[in-house]
Amino acid sequence: MKRIMIAELSSYLNQEVVVSGWVHRLRKLGKIAFIILRDKSGLVQCVIDTKTIDIKDLKLEAVIKIKGKVKLAQGKSESLEIQVISIDMLSPAHEDLPIEINKENMDISLDVMLNNRALSLRNPKLGAVLKVKAVLAQAFSDFLIKNDFTQIFTPKIVAQGTEGGSNLFELNYFETKAYLAQSPQFYKQIMVGAGFERVFEIGHVYRAESHDTKRHLNEYVSLDVEFGFIQDEYEIMELENRLLDFMMKEVESKCSRELELLGAQLPKVPSEIPKMKLSEAISILNQKYNLNDLQTDLSPKGEKLISEYIKGEYNSDFVFITHYPQSKRPMYTMPYGEGETRSFDLLFRGLEITTGGQRIHDYTQLLENIAKRGLSKEQFKDYLYIFKYGMPPHGGFAIGLERITSMLLGFDNVRYASAFPRDKMRITP
Amino acid sequence: MKRIMIAELSSYLNQEVVVSGWVHRLRKLGKIAFIILRDKSGLVQCVIDTKTIDIKDLKLEAVIKIKGKVKLAQGKSESLEIQVISIDMLSPAHEDLPIEINKENMDISLDVMLNNRALSLRNPKLGAVLKVKAVLAQAFSDFLIKNDFTQIFTPKIVAQGTEGGSNLFELNYFETKAYLAQSPQFYKQIMVGAGFERVFEIGHVYRAESHDTKRHLNEYVSLDVEFGFIQDEYEIMELENRLLDFMMKEVESKCSRELELLGAQLPKVPSEIPKMKLSEAISILNQKYNLNDLQTDLSPKGEKLISEYIKGEYNSDFVFITHYPQSKRPMYTMPYGEGETRSFDLLFRGLEITTGGQRIHDYTQLLENIAKRGLSKEQFKDYLYIFKYGMPPHGGFAIGLERITSMLLGFDNVRYASAFPRDKMRITP
Repeated sequence: MKRIMIAELSSYLNQEVVVSGWVHRLRKLGKIAFIILRDKSGLVQCVIDTKTIDIKDLKLEAVIKIKGKVKLAQGKSESLEIQVISIDMLSPAHEDLPIEINKENMDISLDVMLNNRALSLRNPKLGAVLKVKAVLAQAFSDFLIKNDFTQIFTPKIVAQGTEGGSNLFELNYFETKAYLAQSPQFYKQIMVGAGFERVFEIGHVYRAESHDTKRHLNEYVSLDVEFGFIQDEYEIMELENRLLDFMMKEVESKCSRELELLGAQLPKVPSEIPKMKLSEAISILNQKYNLNDLQTDLSPKGEKLISEYIKGEYNSDFVFITHYPQSKRPMYTMPYGEGETRSFDLLFRGLEITTGGQRIHDYTQLLENIAKRGLSKEQFKDYLYIFKYGMPPHGGFAIGLERITSMLLGFDNVRYASAFPRDKMRITP
Repeated sequence: MKRIMIAELSSYLNQEVVVSGWVHRLRKLGKIAFIILRDKSGLVQCVIDTKTIDIKDLKLEAVIKIKGKVKLAQGKSESLEIQVISIDMLSPAHEDLPIEINKENMDISLDVMLNNRALSLRNPKLGAVLKVKAVLAQAFSDFLIKNDFTQIFTPKIVAQGTEGGSNLFELNYFETKAYLAQSPQFYKQIMVGAGFERVFEIGHVYRAESHDTKRHLNEYVSLDVEFGFIQDEYEIMELENRLLDFMMKEVESKCSRELELLGAQLPKVPSEIPKMKLSEAISILNQKYNLNDLQTDLSPKGEKLISEYIKGEYNSDFVFITHYPQSKRPMYTMPYGEGETRSFDLLFRGLEITTGGQRIHDYTQLLENIAKRGLSKEQFKDYLYIFKYGMPPHGGFAIGLERITSMLLGFDNVRYASAFPRDKMRITP
């Protein structure tokens, strides 16, 4: 008999079925025993007559195959249970569990959770986070393909960094040194110029930042977008606006079980996400919140407060902060006026999840900007190459996948959204 | 007026349109000039009256915006051209081209092609390879999601290698050493055991192999699949069979222009790809092809010849070679009988594009196999962890994305299928 998933049981009332999964809970009451069986689709109670079926060696988390009859659970008209006919052991549990993953909310520290990550992910709530993450990534890709973007795969082993040297992991590459890419920034621009026009990449990026915060990982997944033949940065924000709307709707329709489990409230994406110049945001923070130390950027506290302000004024969980100063943006950012740029950050519920903007496409202007910053054009030789031969006006953005996932689901630490996070203290499991 | 793509022109006959793109070819004939304009969707001839429009500074590959009227080309009833009203320069070309990308077949060496990769990709044929690659990756993902798989993202920075130490790139990771993952093998198995049951990953993998061949890259994209609750390795091959069929059909329907450009013949995927035991393949090679040096594996020449044999006998471009000996497979491979394993390779047109098989899921058996190979279980601590707590029978496979792409399109070097390939001699551009 073919295995069916627990979520399909309602179609099999009063019929014999085979289900397989992990022993999530186990309770023996005299001649009767109850197993809560868990598979990837859900949980079901299985009732065992211990006179005919021996379960004395059964441990929590053993993998078993159950043949049984689907019944309405006694006393509860809406839930189903399985009256067990036979149990096959597929894979025993050899040891008692180091953590209680069958509890709804595991009372363990983040460190213990991560040290036992392969097991803690079996907890339905913790596993649900990564399912939502997968749907977000897929929605990102689906939307962009529908909008005529091409997926690209660019190298993570690079000869030098994007921004000029800091925060790079160094690698022994045969007889030379190489680095892990901090971002696909240069490559995605090059691919736009190489004729692909509209590209996206879903890939790992690496930041050798030694500070240990709740919002940073040293290896994370970047959802990168870049496209050409644009008017200005507003066209980029407009695309991201529609993209986010699509991503949220996909999560809503495909992750109802996960959202319910996690008690997560999806944001409504406004048809036009509010935009605010950085200078205006700073002035509001100054006047209304007495935050006086901000000059050219928002602090984490500033991001939180301005998000609260926007929520109050416009009822939006999102806000684009625009016109960052040139001093705070990399050399490839398109200037705007004397000191500003055509760039933006997107804040979501108080956290920056995107940086984006229009880039310089004119070769001469790019050379000038590199010189102005005291950088050497030699260092950017491979990047500059394509700008010599006709580069359309272009721009893009990147979304941190773990950040958007964790913020969406109400976790205050991005590590919950990484299967096996890498930080200064952790390269295992 | 909104830009339209060149491929859409046929809907605008006798109307005014705006198109943008690169100057692919340029020919001046007295008072008339002809530009072949290229955008990501195709090429179109644009006719210019040089008495009214000045193009004397226009160089090949400049990015321009053309306003003009769509007309049937004179003398050729089926092609369209644009009678130019005005030209805007979006981005000039600053230098003459180092390679002739407007030729249908560029007569340059692989090295020159890769040194000028950002530009050579503008050649429609070379760019088309990466578009097919993108569709293959997307089809892989679409098929698996439809079949209830979850996309995972596993770390590429790892504390040790999968197979025990060779061919690893070493990394300076803060105060310690780390390595780049050779494969997500252990992690994808862990994720199956962590309750996800059916997982896939599209990600970079790293092999520090110093030999320089046409079939190897030091960084490539691996399409990885792993799933639990299987009967045996035949269930894995059956899934891959259906997956490949879907991938080929997607390429056929979405890449007709690219396939035509490249003159590529898509294979028909048989409803059941032929399977042959390795021992039988070796015996056929021995008897029919006089290849006497094969004992426990196929050489590249052996792979080619057995593929020819299968093509002749079964008219299939694919063949599963099964039952590889234990000595040739890693310690986690499920044994079969005394010396063989439940593993397979998939050959496509003479090249191995997949390795897969069932894995050992029993903790005790895995420990025994590790000991038998003289390996230390301490080294595999993080991997072994999940096997202690109930692991379903499982298996999977990996497809090399650049290999399948290049073989499909008739390129004899995988570098054609990588935007910016990494090999021993090359970490730029």
